[in-house]
Amino acid sequence: MDLGKEGPLVHIGACLANLLSQGGEGRWRLRWRWLRFFNNDRDRRDLITCGASSGVCAAFRAPVGGVLFALEEVATWWRSALLWRTFFSTATVVVVLRGFIEVCRNGRCGMFGEGGLILFDVSGVTVRYHAGDLLPVTLVGVLGGLFGALYNHVLHQVLRLYNLINARGRLAKLALALAVSVLTSAGLYLLPFAVPCTPCSAAGAAAASCPTVGKSGNFKQFNCPDGFYNDLASLLHATNTDATRNIFSTGTAGEFRLDSLLIFFAIYCVLGLLTFGIAVPSGLFLPIILMGSAYGRIAALVLARFVRIDHGLYAVLGAAALMSGSMRMTVSLCVIFLELTNNLLLLPITMFVLLIAKTVGDAFNPSIYEIILDLKGLPFLEPKPETWMKDIAVGELAAAKPRAVTLQVVERVSTVVEVLRSTPHNGFPVLDRPRPGVSELHGLVLRSHLMAVLRKRWFLPERRRTEEWEAREKFSSTGLAEKAGSVDELQLSPEELDMYIDLHPFTNTTPYTVVETMSVAKAVVLFRTCALRHMLIIPKFQGLEISPIVGILTRQDLRAHNILGAFPLLANKRKVH
Amino acid sequence: MDLGKEGPLVHIGACLANLLSQGGEGRWRLRWRWLRFFNNDRDRRDLITCGASSGVCAAFRAPVGGVLFALEEVATWWRSALLWRTFFSTATVVVVLRGFIEVCRNGRCGMFGEGGLILFDVSGVTVRYHAGDLLPVTLVGVLGGLFGALYNHVLHQVLRLYNLINARGRLAKLALALAVSVLTSAGLYLLPFAVPCTPCSAAGAAAASCPTVGKSGNFKQFNCPDGFYNDLASLLHATNTDATRNIFSTGTAGEFRLDSLLIFFAIYCVLGLLTFGIAVPSGLFLPIILMGSAYGRIAALVLARFVRIDHGLYAVLGAAALMSGSMRMTVSLCVIFLELTNNLLLLPITMFVLLIAKTVGDAFNPSIYEIILDLKGLPFLEPKPETWMKDIAVGELAAAKPRAVTLQVVERVSTVVEVLRSTPHNGFPVLDRPRPGVSELHGLVLRSHLMAVLRKRWFLPERRRTEEWEAREKFSSTGLAEKAGSVDELQLSPEELDMYIDLHPFTNTTPYTVVETMSVAKAVVLFRTCALRHMLIIPKFQGLEISPIVGILTRQDLRAHNILGAFPLLANKRKVH
Repeated sequence: MDLGKEGPLVHIGACLANLLSQGGEGRWRLRWRWLRFFNNDRDRRDLITCGASSGVCAAFRAPVGGVLFALEEVATWWRSALLWRTFFSTATVVVVLRGFIEVCRNGRCGMFGEGGLILFDVSGVTVRYHAGDLLPVTLVGVLGGLFGALYNHVLHQVLRLYNLINARGRLAKLALALAVSVLTSAGLYLLPFAVPCTPCSAAGAAAASCPTVGKSGNFKQFNCPDGFYNDLASLLHATNTDATRNIFSTGTAGEFRLDSLLIFFAIYCVLGLLTFGIAVPSGLFLPIILMGSAYGRIAALVLARFVRIDHGLYAVLGAAALMSGSMRMTVSLCVIFLELTNNLLLLPITMFVLLIAKTVGDAFNPSIYEIILDLKGLPFLEPKPETWMKDIAVGELAAAKPRAVTLQVVERVSTVVEVLRSTPHNGFPVLDRPRPGVSELHGLVLRSHLMAVLRKRWFLPERRRTEEWEAREKFSSTGLAEKAGSVDELQLSPEELDMYIDLHPFTNTTPYTVVETMSVAKAVVLFRTCALRHMLIIPKFQGLEISPIVGILTRQDLRAHNILGAFPLLANKRKVH
Repeated sequence: MDLGKEGPLVHIGACLANLLSQGGEGRWRLRWRWLRFFNNDRDRRDLITCGASSGVCAAFRAPVGGVLFALEEVATWWRSALLWRTFFSTATVVVVLRGFIEVCRNGRCGMFGEGGLILFDVSGVTVRYHAGDLLPVTLVGVLGGLFGALYNHVLHQVLRLYNLINARGRLAKLALALAVSVLTSAGLYLLPFAVPCTPCSAAGAAAASCPTVGKSGNFKQFNCPDGFYNDLASLLHATNTDATRNIFSTGTAGEFRLDSLLIFFAIYCVLGLLTFGIAVPSGLFLPIILMGSAYGRIAALVLARFVRIDHGLYAVLGAAALMSGSMRMTVSLCVIFLELTNNLLLLPITMFVLLIAKTVGDAFNPSIYEIILDLKGLPFLEPKPETWMKDIAVGELAAAKPRAVTLQVVERVSTVVEVLRSTPHNGFPVLDRPRPGVSELHGLVLRSHLMAVLRKRWFLPERRRTEEWEAREKFSSTGLAEKAGSVDELQLSPEELDMYIDLHPFTNTTPYTVVETMSVAKAVVLFRTCALRHMLIIPKFQGLEISPIVGILTRQDLRAHNILGAFPLLANKRKVH
């Protein structure tokens, strides 16, 4: 069972973009010099965003949806140029895709070209809905939100268990993946035996073409006499794309039996939960779309008395509700569904369902992406500071950390090497001593710049200030932006260690500074909106006897989880999720 | 001629939102107390954004397009909660619209319900395009960008002229509006006489229904014998919506003659330029869509040898190209067109045309919105700092301004009144004197808070520091957020003027501060991304003899235009537009 391809595609897009931004892969001599211009944090971030949106675009053939996905879920920091860049990259993807579809029109490339640019076309049906449809549709949204939240909760537990298993080494990983794949194969093959055959005449308008003989299509005969089909096999023994197309197909209210749909929903629930997190590339989107569409059809069958919209459209609504209940996206999901199904008239009602499901889901737990980011321990800063963060000042937070490691603006080489070796920090405050006894904050120097200086051995024999042009002659901006590497690789002689480095040309003299009394909540907002990497904290009142710097905060320090680590007494104030 | 309704609708939406956020209109006793909770800058801004997106949604029945319009063009500062809020408001608009359309289905409300939720439906035609279509489509994009830039340029000159005329008083305004409307009526009525009648048989598939007798429809007989129609009258003697529907209609390659289209294009060009800026509510979208669609059809007729796509779709592409060439939107325009025309297969090629037209247009001048904002003198901060801003430090900028007006943390009432009366500033740095001879920056106090204190007459007989609870008892957060009003309305006795105000409870002790050496470019980015209203500049090095504050910058100060005013020598570095 291919459990979703959008996860891997998004991942591949982001990885390729990251690779490009590093100037290509060094190991296989695929390094292009001109790509080094993108080797800086901002361009790397932009390229990764573009890569992710291209991935979504390629998976769903949804160019606008891809852009919005990047905006709503991927990017923590958005600038207007990015909208235009992601849009350009998805436009390129669509043009290339379109070209390949044109080439593969006559089936030369397997099942690639099928469905054209619109994967699950339900544009054929005219949507008419009235006030009376509101009740069942609302119900679909509310239950979708509940199911989505429940799915998130259970997936969280499963992933925690898997983390323990995967940590036991490669063999355990392999065994887990094997076990899940055996279960998957057995389940998918054997389950269709559990349901009776359905006569083709019951399937409505599409009955004339039943059963489909080829690999792909609406009906699978599977173990049934001629003139009959097995509805569960039609869903389970097809590719995910075909299954979705079957279940979204319109004018087929009688095609799927309630018990088949319940079995389908249950098995996808179980497999979706078990598969994500094992050591295979898998996505989240398609399993949830399939579960959701089955759920939508089940709802339509159960509420048959109140349902006046086509069952295929209920499948779309169910999928939207479950997606939104689990992933909590709104606009991007709406547009992705629009581009998947090509039915604009469904848009208002999809929006309605999405909003309800998101609201219900948000009442229980965070989105599935946040849960996964949290489990992976990635330093992802929450978009919204929590209320209790208003009660802590950044100064208190800095005081709870080890003292910030600072450098003097003209520093001994041995001290710099020692500092780089003993700390993992990426930035160091630089202090200056303009007059004897006075210590002032000069700025912030990056680890990568210090490493570049050490690599080039740009040392001074005595303590003096250099001129700007001396550094300009020696260092280029692309050279400075390269990755830091390890300090232990440098072989420095004792004479060199005894020399000095002038940090004046390398110090950012205007880093973002906040006073120590600023609340953590405000600092988090500043950190995220300006996409900072370091934030220097300066004392409220300065004076001769006071250090000019209170501390330095990174993204890691500002995460809710880590703040609570520093202030254990606050833990009871926080909602547990 | 109704020259576009989306302008007024967006405006109405924003105005209503602003009114709501101020707690209703006070003059007519429509003031609701609970609305006062929205009476703060952030909620007001959010509400206005929602209002504008609802306006676009209502005008084009494009809910996702409305959200993206707000994101791309309206909001200078975006936060994730806003995506969800604008989405909710456009969803509500669609549901209400849908309800009214349902009620008005049988023509009870004039022409309101026509077209349903999709205004210009071209979904009927199957789009097939190949590599050979790229050349004419690229040409449409490039020329669209050129025309758009030219339109912006001429409109800029016309608006400058109109500003001079409108400044002469109400009579001049009225005369101008009258002159334009007479010209419009005469032109629109008389021009169809200039073109010959076309036999209905030439119009292709739709010929059977020619001529339409009712008010609305594809063909107008206008002065022609039976069996003939006047194609220019079909465009000019219809509502804008009907005209757009006619010109977008597919399968009608022979319906419009080249000379009629040229006349239509020219008259709309002239009227579009002349109408925007007179004292009537008018929009930009529809005139440009109409011009662009005529331009697209003209291109299709001229390039007939290379054109293999339906002429109606060329009209859509032409409209997109001209819109993008003039307004420089990408994603939002793309989605608005998708929602207007309901043809998803057209999306890739629309994206392509939009990107080309925007790129070409950007090479000549800024977008039409920026031109208008600039003419109106609104303090709209450019999204991207210009290159030369890197060469100026904020300290230099502050030095070029008058000295910042500061207050002491415990200040005499008379001084506060004097400061409020003599300056228009909205925020004042507050200084503290913790020890004799030492002056330190305490924070920033807002004009509205000072006004609230003066209104409540919360004065102290002697110079002392109050406790926090004393202020809490007296002031509520909604009360403090109210509009400032004028200081002259307060009748303060000489005794009161001789008393003191303690600003401790009202001072924001953690305003955003930057050091004086920060470049203006960096400050502009910080200002815009954090949506600041004031930025305090502190000296690089502090000391006993140095003032703790170098200056204060507002949005107005950071606009390119105003910086150039302060540094006239820089003017030659700047591209003139």
